[in-house]
Amino acid sequence: MNLNHVIESQQFTLPKIKELFERTELMKKIVARGGTKDYENKIMANLFYKPSTRTRFSFASAMYRLGGKVMTTEQAGEFSSEVEGEKLEDTIRIIAHYSDVIVLRHVEEGGAERAASVSTVPIINAGDGSGGQHPTQALLDLYTIYSECNTLDGMSVAFIGALDTGRTVRSLAYLLSKYDRTKLYFIAPDEMQIKPDILEYLDKRNVSYELANTTKGIVNRVDVIYQTRINQNRLKSKKIDLSVYNIDSDVLKVMKNDAIIMHPLPRSVEISHEVDSDHRAKYFRQSENGIYVRMALLTMLFDN
Amino acid sequence: MNLNHVIESQQFTLPKIKELFERTELMKKIVARGGTKDYENKIMANLFYKPSTRTRFSFASAMYRLGGKVMTTEQAGEFSSEVEGEKLEDTIRIIAHYSDVIVLRHVEEGGAERAASVSTVPIINAGDGSGGQHPTQALLDLYTIYSECNTLDGMSVAFIGALDTGRTVRSLAYLLSKYDRTKLYFIAPDEMQIKPDILEYLDKRNVSYELANTTKGIVNRVDVIYQTRINQNRLKSKKIDLSVYNIDSDVLKVMKNDAIIMHPLPRSVEISHEVDSDHRAKYFRQSENGIYVRMALLTMLFDN
Amino acid sequence: MNLNHVIESQQFTLPKIKELFERTELMKKIVARGGTKDYENKIMANLFYKPSTRTRFSFASAMYRLGGKVMTTEQAGEFSSEVEGEKLEDTIRIIAHYSDVIVLRHVEEGGAERAASVSTVPIINAGDGSGGQHPTQALLDLYTIYSECNTLDGMSVAFIGALDTGRTVRSLAYLLSKYDRTKLYFIAPDEMQIKPDILEYLDKRNVSYELANTTKGIVNRVDVIYQTRINQNRLKSKKIDLSVYNIDSDVLKVMKNDAIIMHPLPRSVEISHEVDSDHRAKYFRQSENGIYVRMALLTMLFDN
Repeated sequence: MNLNHVIESQQFTLPKIKELFERTELMKKIVARGGTKDYENKIMANLFYKPSTRTRFSFASAMYRLGGKVMTTEQAGEFSSEVEGEKLEDTIRIIAHYSDVIVLRHVEEGGAERAASVSTVPIINAGDGSGGQHPTQALLDLYTIYSECNTLDGMSVAFIGALDTGRTVRSLAYLLSKYDRTKLYFIAPDEMQIKPDILEYLDKRNVSYELANTTKGIVNRVDVIYQTRINQNRLKSKKIDLSVYNIDSDVLKVMKNDAIIMHPLPRSVEISHEVDSDHRAKYFRQSENGIYVRMALLTMLFDN
Repeated sequence: MNLNHVIESQQFTLPKIKELFERTELMKKIVARGGTKDYENKIMANLFYKPSTRTRFSFASAMYRLGGKVMTTEQAGEFSSEVEGEKLEDTIRIIAHYSDVIVLRHVEEGGAERAASVSTVPIINAGDGSGGQHPTQALLDLYTIYSECNTLDGMSVAFIGALDTGRTVRSLAYLLSKYDRTKLYFIAPDEMQIKPDILEYLDKRNVSYELANTTKGIVNRVDVIYQTRINQNRLKSKKIDLSVYNIDSDVLKVMKNDAIIMHPLPRSVEISHEVDSDHRAKYFRQSENGIYVRMALLTMLFDN
Repeated sequence: MNLNHVIESQQFTLPKIKELFERTELMKKIVARGGTKDYENKIMANLFYKPSTRTRFSFASAMYRLGGKVMTTEQAGEFSSEVEGEKLEDTIRIIAHYSDVIVLRHVEEGGAERAASVSTVPIINAGDGSGGQHPTQALLDLYTIYSECNTLDGMSVAFIGALDTGRTVRSLAYLLSKYDRTKLYFIAPDEMQIKPDILEYLDKRNVSYELANTTKGIVNRVDVIYQTRINQNRLKSKKIDLSVYNIDSDVLKVMKNDAIIMHPLPRSVEISHEVDSDHRAKYFRQSENGIYVRMALLTMLFDN
């Protein structure tokens, strides 16, 4: 199977992930020695229907380290605003003539797939809709576990936060379920607990999991703490004290010495700044890995 | 005559157009083999006083395929907003030090000419004011006819849509009038018909033309259908059914087999999606040609 | 002392300024022959929390002339808006992985220093807060005097305009105070006169200065007229006629033949357009010098 577009994390088989991570290791070395010019003829179009500077910069940096060129819009809605009814498909047909790869952040779920159906160049889904996919985030999360823990088998992972809306948690849980002896913990207030479709999927694949309201008794056992944001404003019940979900020095005291702490960033108060200097805090490394994983993905698309 | 600035389509003589199109053919070949690095020292400033992502991306892509660099603002009005009364001329004098060519979309008619009067680097007019010029669009339109029909002599062209405000139609009609035995049809509701100044110009040059309210009896005879948008909201009379101006399968049935359909894009409903797969639909090719024509123009300016 | 970050003009010692200006001369020559590719592996992140197209373009152009790459946001506030309470420090830690130098325009005084405290790549302060520093402007101002007057010793400089809020005036006055026999004139309406902290600083360094309400008797004697903007709306007293502070043909008549006129631009009415063609008008040259000085600074950071 060749890689033509990157639309959803489900499309990545184990062999494909293996190839991706091998390429990622290579990209780390290439960046360390100053990047490459192998792809200097390639143009990336960053076509964002709403701003996401972090994701956009990460893709641009990946493309630059490969020697390529980047053009950007963060207001792609302007394409359609001037003509009521212009279709995403028309926009993609045009941009595909201007570029060699299109990184698309669209506002509607399924936007990336519609784009891929008409594009003559690869589409990379950089997020489509609030409930949609963001596959490169899931892949860089998985790579971070792999490179920090040296394996993806037998990992126990605690997801913490507003798990019902957590796109990254859903995608990563999906990818982890492919590996042997995975054990997942979903820690959230009841009203923000992970949605049943993921649990049904895990049941079907015989993946072991637990739901919980507290980090107590769990964060001391797991290999990975995957912390995410909780928007205080979403809480219906004012009685819930969200600070019990925070990662702070108390959690550091009980965590295993070789466990790691991840976060898709940006963070608010849910990880204390005192945690930053701990050797197990890997969230900035995780963000850095995004460059290498995205470089690796780009080369897989270009070398096709 | 050397090419110092690209301000209006009128400045292009037949020999200059010939040279441009020869260079355009060469650029097609250069892009097919991955672009060139011949202009890698050159910097383009995309100075847009209002956003036009499509045009901006097309110029950026052209510059990148030539090996060059691009910097962009879509809110150049900010230059002047901070100081009441800052003149476009001052802005241009400054940007001319930062770049080797300035692609200017200004909001006032005549803006590009004012810019050219003080600039030490070439100015390319990418649209100035709603009634102003957009010469690179006219040139890529002309090139599309030339490359699809293998000649520019004896062409019959039907312009359809809101022709009174159609900047691209006006400019293309102007350029076509330079060629032998041109025959033009202007098809629009009366209230949106082409303005008298163009007709006077055609009369003076003895160019044959007809005005019409319907595509019937015309679209079956012409070599080129140049469709444009009609903004429904502009119609004073609610009784007019604009769908009679649409290009759809009925038009495809009567069109000549070697005729072509063009559109400056974006389109709304005025070309049905069923037309896209017809071999005579050339509007996406036309958009693609914009890259090659703009590359050719840039080389003419740089090689001066 | 190596140059790790460019935060404030105070950090530049006389030897460092000397090195900077030697490099600046070299950069002029490099640009004249089309730029260099020596820094083609380097990525600049233009991280602007509010737009400043002029400054941003100047840095981008400098980076491009060095062969490097540039990525840009003018709405970096978006980084933090999605998460209440995201810290600048977190943003910098992330962007530092994406780039080799960060050009930061922040909204809070001290922002650049906070950024430098956590960044693994050099930070260049491109303005922080309205009362903060903008050191590259001060350095290019100083360089312009140096290159036009061939010395920095014994210069008499008249600053004119709203000096209380004039960031560039404050920084340049600071730098000029390092040189022998400097004489400064501060010419402004009383309510916009330079703030006492600068005068105290000059007193401490035994730098000679005068305050005045009029250009009369001063502009005929100085080596440099440094004109700045006066915002008419800020004037409390309607009786003050600001036109007496303007530079026009009357000033040209009395100025010394080898004096120069500078302005940080953009200008409004405070320099008449009739002045532009005078051989002593150096404000566009000053803007051009910004490219060379910024190139020189970048090489000092990269070559560290």
